Amino acid sequence: MSAPAPAPALECEPIGVVRTPFETPADAPRQGLETDLEGEIVLAPEYERALEGLAAKKTVEVVWHADRVERSALRVRDGERGVFSTRAPQRPNPICVTTCDVLAVEPPRVTVAGVDMVDDTPVLDLKPSLE
Amino acid sequence: MSAPAPAPALECEPIGVVRTPFETPADAPRQGLETDLEGEIVLAPEYERALEGLAAKKTVEVVWHADRVERSALRVRDGERGVFSTRAPQRPNPICVTTCDVLAVEPPRVTVAGVDMVDDTPVLDLKPSLE
Repeated sequence: MSAPAPAPALECEPIGVVRTPFETPADAPRQGLETDLEGEIVLAPEYERALEGLAAKKTVEVVWHADRVERSALRVRDGERGVFSTRAPQRPNPICVTTCDVLAVEPPRVTVAGVDMVDDTPVLDLKPSLE
Repeated sequence: MSAPAPAPALECEPIGVVRTPFETPADAPRQGLETDLEGEIVLAPEYERALEGLAAKKTVEVVWHADRVERSALRVRDGERGVFSTRAPQRPNPICVTTCDVLAVEPPRVTVAGVDMVDDTPVLDLKPSLE
């Protein structure tokens, strides 16, 4: 089979940021599931209308931009592992996905539990988890 | 609290494409979990080294770019729902996440079951699911 045709790039604009207790990547837990720490997603005002229907007591996948990492890593853990076999934030497209519990929705703010992002991390998307 | 500071944009380059049986968005199932149909992720050659450690019989989150959708939608289903309360591919940052079963890893190809993407969709990332 021939090599894949070049696919288009994707330019992502943040929909907001997440406020968390973690000031640096070293402070943040490796996975949100390891904590029940709370954070607050603050959407840009133009996205408020996109929140309707998102409900407390559900879980949501927070898609975020790991904007303080190196993107060129293909191997991690001292070269032992291919990055696509890990969830390390250092990856070619530094898109991370954290499943959080929704505690409150008060547009433009969504309070969640289970954060593992550094404070002020750009948020790209919110999706309800599949049941 | 003051409005969030502007966050940086993210430029994503595809790591490859996914070959599936679905020629148009209308052909594709709404969620991969509804099917066990097989597809093949074909990585660009430079990313082969990033696959090591990804194993068959595991599940992987395939992060993909819904490149054939409208991005400006904030409300879907005739305006009834905010897009962040749905998993519709029409969203401001058209990043979709499908959990697939890994059937075989033969770099640069990964055969998976549970696809819901249109044929030739750009793939942005692969992450093992959290156990």
